[in-house]
This record gives sequence, structure tokens and C-alpha cells, in this order.
Amino acid sequence: MIAEGGSVTEQPRKLQIAVIGDGEAEENVLRVAEQVGSRIAELGAVLITGGHGGVMEAACRGAASRGGICVGILRSGRLSDANRYCNVVIGTEIEHARNVLTVLSSDAVITIGGGAGTLSEICFAWIHGRPLFILRGFGGWSDRLENEPLDRRRTSPMFFFESIDELFAALTSFLSKG
Amino acid sequence: MIAEGGSVTEQPRKLQIAVIGDGEAEENVLRVAEQVGSRIAELGAVLITGGHGGVMEAACRGAASRGGICVGILRSGRLSDANRYCNVVIGTEIEHARNVLTVLSSDAVITIGGGAGTLSEICFAWIHGRPLFILRGFGGWSDRLENEPLDRRRTSPMFFFESIDELFAALTSFLSKG
Amino acid sequence: MIAEGGSVTEQPRKLQIAVIGDGEAEENVLRVAEQVGSRIAELGAVLITGGHGGVMEAACRGAASRGGICVGILRSGRLSDANRYCNVVIGTEIEHARNVLTVLSSDAVITIGGGAGTLSEICFAWIHGRPLFILRGFGGWSDRLENEPLDRRRTSPMFFFESIDELFAALTSFLSKG
Amino acid sequence: MIAEGGSVTEQPRKLQIAVIGDGEAEENVLRVAEQVGSRIAELGAVLITGGHGGVMEAACRGAASRGGICVGILRSGRLSDANRYCNVVIGTEIEHARNVLTVLSSDAVITIGGGAGTLSEICFAWIHGRPLFILRGFGGWSDRLENEPLDRRRTSPMFFFESIDELFAALTSFLSKG
Repeated sequence: MIAEGGSVTEQPRKLQIAVIGDGEAEENVLRVAEQVGSRIAELGAVLITGGHGGVMEAACRGAASRGGICVGILRSGRLSDANRYCNVVIGTEIEHARNVLTVLSSDAVITIGGGAGTLSEICFAWIHGRPLFILRGFGGWSDRLENEPLDRRRTSPMFFFESIDELFAALTSFLSKG
Repeated sequence: MIAEGGSVTEQPRKLQIAVIGDGEAEENVLRVAEQVGSRIAELGAVLITGGHGGVMEAACRGAASRGGICVGILRSGRLSDANRYCNVVIGTEIEHARNVLTVLSSDAVITIGGGAGTLSEICFAWIHGRPLFILRGFGGWSDRLENEPLDRRRTSPMFFFESIDELFAALTSFLSKG
Repeated sequence: MIAEGGSVTEQPRKLQIAVIGDGEAEENVLRVAEQVGSRIAELGAVLITGGHGGVMEAACRGAASRGGICVGILRSGRLSDANRYCNVVIGTEIEHARNVLTVLSSDAVITIGGGAGTLSEICFAWIHGRPLFILRGFGGWSDRLENEPLDRRRTSPMFFFESIDELFAALTSFLSKG
Repeated sequence: MIAEGGSVTEQPRKLQIAVIGDGEAEENVLRVAEQVGSRIAELGAVLITGGHGGVMEAACRGAASRGGICVGILRSGRLSDANRYCNVVIGTEIEHARNVLTVLSSDAVITIGGGAGTLSEICFAWIHGRPLFILRGFGGWSDRLENEPLDRRRTSPMFFFESIDELFAALTSFLSKG
């Protein structure tokens, strides 16, 4: 039996940070996604992704290289659909509705490039007040979005960055304020 | 940058095992759930739960005491709703529809006691062919179910046990056959 | 433009009644499902089903023959997957998670026969307090369930009947009490 | 019993057309939404909405005034949350994940104004190839979107209009081509 009190095992939940972007992407986008994944693991945070290829896989690869926990929240219900770097896989079978879950499972969301699926996740992050850290320079909606509120009904944190260093400086500062 | 090939970080996904049961339960039920959680962590498997209290929390407490990864797939979208032993929390905001996800995220499902919510998860495990390891002796649907197929449309693995030792002997044997 | 007040168009929502059961069933089961569908339309209620074949299609056929509104809440996102009697089709692509929606879209739930999927819907009806009207004599979980609460955490209305007439007498009485 | 063949009741499913936009909106936006709802009912199509207030309610009011079928696919599981013009209500309790369902339940999607929620639905329409008919002039994302593909992975039909007449001319032409 386990000792009363649980003082050893009970600990504050780690931060969970999502990386969202295209399921297929060019080499330079994958490289930056991998670096972002590494940085998340170095922070001691859990990486949340959609579990499939492209930016998701590259971010997981980066986090895995630093021994991080990589979570893949799949569209399908087949655990084998996850990329090979995920060490926790969530099967859903709810297809694109899982985009809500990626966002809700995160304390902060980093975007790199991104098409319509990524844009839907940006919308859900906005709606649910999950802070958005948007990396410019890699195309897609991360570049197309103007630095303006997504709507007037809410005020959610949304920040734009030109480099990974800048982004992580702001991210760590933001999250340390809790 | 990370070395080509990823040979260090790429590794077979760990087994993921769900423990399902009541969100509120009596002391003897919680005690057995905690033991089951410990055993799952000792196997090196990831524990999947619904992330809330009762059997879910007790199983997480057991797994956490052995340094295991404890995943809580919440009904809500508030990460702070998870019990304090979860080290990966999935926010969903899809309420009871998340019962499908608990099952789909698991290679095997262990049931202890259980009311209507647990029974719905047993149904989904049956439908999706996730093997069910049902522990007798702690009331609820784990005791009420007869040792008969849930329906004639499918043949899914469903096993009944009178003790934790028996259950884990069968579970490890089953999972090793892949 | 439309006149102020909307007094013509604003009217109390019709009752919505679900019929749940197997996607494949024998002739006698389909016949009773068709009769149940007809009776629902004769009450002026909207029929809610899972939109696919078997009991769902037979119930829709019955309701359509009386000019009723038949809603099919599909597992898939392809509207063409609905049976040909549905005149409102809800595409979901959330697969079995839609079982929650069938129940939540209904003021009352009638069960005929049924396997694991139907049993999961019975669980959700119980959890959400949607009254269950269970028709005996056609096999499956409608016959296997004992006349006992599904769990002790809630008290939800659940009634068992040996004939359609009996069932509809109780249903209309129950619903008229609002 | 019903006659063999079902020739009377079996009929082609009606077209289903969604109207999406803000849950709160100014008078001129509501007025146009109501007109759009009326036009949908005059086409003999089923109106699909999110079932709540603002643009959704105004469109339902318009359709109801022409005797149309108005479907509200709610975020919640409480049927009484629907606006008073819905005559079919789908309870979901999956919150914003239901945005996928609004789109998947439609043969075509009309947008008026719209914030982050509407933009997520536009994304899902794009992803699933549901044709988008976007009415300009009423603010929000319907005005902010440029006439460019949402991403390069797909080619989905997306059209922009300056007036209701123009929009419905194109919509009827598009849908008649099947």
C-alpha cells in the first residue's frame, strides 16, 4: 500500500503547450517546428499536437529528442495513426471536431504556417481564451492573420513573433505570470 | 539541430491501459483502484482515465506513486478539473461523449464497479474491439454483467476476474501476444 | 418584411421522440419499429433516429407514412448515408459519440431490442434524465435489462412495456404532465 | 400496416442550407438574416442553424414565416435553449465542436458577418467541400476574408456576393447542377 498523504506523487501539473500547423509542410517549416518542439521540452512542458505528420511530427521529433512528453490527439481512433515520436496517443474518431480538444488541452498555443484546419484551431483558442503565440515567416494563416482581434465579443491574448527566441521569451514571461 | 535518423528518440509507443469506474466510490473500491493503477505503472504502461475523482483519482494516485504517466481525459475543458495525480490532462468540453475517447485511447480497458457512465464505456470498448478486463467483487456493472457477449454483431474480447493478480496475469499474457 | 411580433410563426416546439435499436434486425422487429414510428407521427411528434438502417429505417418509414418529420443523426458526415425516409439529416462525423446526441435531442426515448450501441444510448438517457420507454419481447438489451436502476447516483424514469399500446398510453400520459 | 413499396413516403431528401453568423448582431444584420431565412424556406429547403440567438434566430424567424423547417443544432444539451422559431432541435452538449455538425448537415453554407465561431465554421465548410456563399457588407469575417483559397491543400467552392438576390441566383444555379 501507498503511504498516506501522497506528498511524493502529488505535484503541480506541468504546463501543456500546443504546436499547430500543416500536416504536410516544406523542409524549412519542419525544421522550425522541430526547434519549437525541442524548446517546449526544454521548458519541462508537455507538448500537445494533433499527432499526425508534417508540423505535428516535426514538433514531436524535437520534443522527443529532449526526452519530453509528446501527446498526439488524433482525428481517428487508431492509435497506430500517431507519428512515431508521440509517447501518449489519444484516439478520438471525431475527426476535425478534435481541433477543439487540441486547444482545450493546452495552456498556450504556438502556430506555424497553417491552412484551414489550423485556422479553425486559432478560432477555438481565441474563443476559449487560450493564449496564441503566432510565428511569422512560414506562410499560411500565421502570416495571413492581421494583428487585430478575431472578433469584438472577446479579448483573448494573441501575439505575433518574427523569431523563435522572441516567441519563447514572451511565452515564458506570459506563463510565469500564471 | 538534431541528428538525422532519430534513432534515439524513436521508440515503440508504450501500452496504454484505461481504468474505468465510478467518480465516487467507497474506500475498498478506491483501494483496489489504487493497486490497479500501481500495477499498470509497474508494467511501464500509460494509465488512461477520465481524469476526475473516485476510481479515476485512486488509479492515478497508484500509478503516480510508481512514477507512471497518468492521463486524464476530462469531460470539461478546464485543465484544473483534473485530479492532482494526472500529469497529462486532455480538455474536451464534449461532456459524456468523451467516454468514447477514454476507450479509443486504450489498448485494454480495466473496469472496477461502475454505473451508467462506466457501462457506456464498456459498450464502446465492445464496439471498438478494445479488450475488456472486468474485475468482479466491487459492485456496479462489473458485477452485474453476465459472462455473455454484449451483442451478436461482434465478437470482442471480454474477460472476468476475481482478483487483481489473476487479471494482470491474463492482461500481460493477452497484450504480449499483440 | 415580416410583421412585428411573430405571432403566427412562433409556436411551441413539437415533442421529439427517439426510437433506438439495431441497425440490422429481423422482420418482426422491423414491423414493430415501423408501427412505433407511425404512432409517433400520429402524436404530432418529431421522430429522432440514428438515421441508418434496421430499426432506425423502419421507424422512419412508419413516421414518413403518416407525414411526420423524421430526423436522422448520422455517425458519418455524408448526408447520403441516411435512409431514404429521413427528411432532416444531421451529419456529424463523430461516429459513436453521436449516440449522446440522439438521446439529448429527445424528450423521450423508446427502445426496441438493441445491442451494445443501443445500450450505450440507454446509459446516456439514464445519465441525462431522458425518460426511457423500453419495449419487451424483441430481444437484445430491451429484454436483457432488469427492472432496476442503472446506478444509484441518479433516479431517472425508466419503464418497461409488453405492448405498443401500453407503451404509448404511458408515454402520452407522461409527456402531458410535462 | 403500410403498403408495400413505400412509393408515397419515399422521396428525395430536401436540400439543407445553413445560415451562420453572430449570436448577437445589429438590427440591419438581423434584418438581412431574416430575409435570407425566408428565401431558403421559399426554395423548399431545410434551414440549418446553430439554434441560438442573433443571426441564427433571425434566419429561423424568416424561414418559419414561410412555413419552413428550421433546425437548431445547439451547443448545449437543453432543448429549451433553442430559439423559439426552431421546429427541430438537436441537443449536443459538445459545445463548439458542434460547429463541425452545422456545416456537415448542410448542402451549402451562407455566411453573414461573423466572429471567430463563424470563421471556424467557414474553415470546416472549406475542409469538407461544402460550398460557401458569403454575403458581403455586414462586417465580420464575411467582409474580412479575401477572395483567395483558405489553403492550398484543397479546392473548395467559395463565392462572394454583394446582395441577397445575387447570392440566391448563384446558389440555386449551383445546387441545381447537383
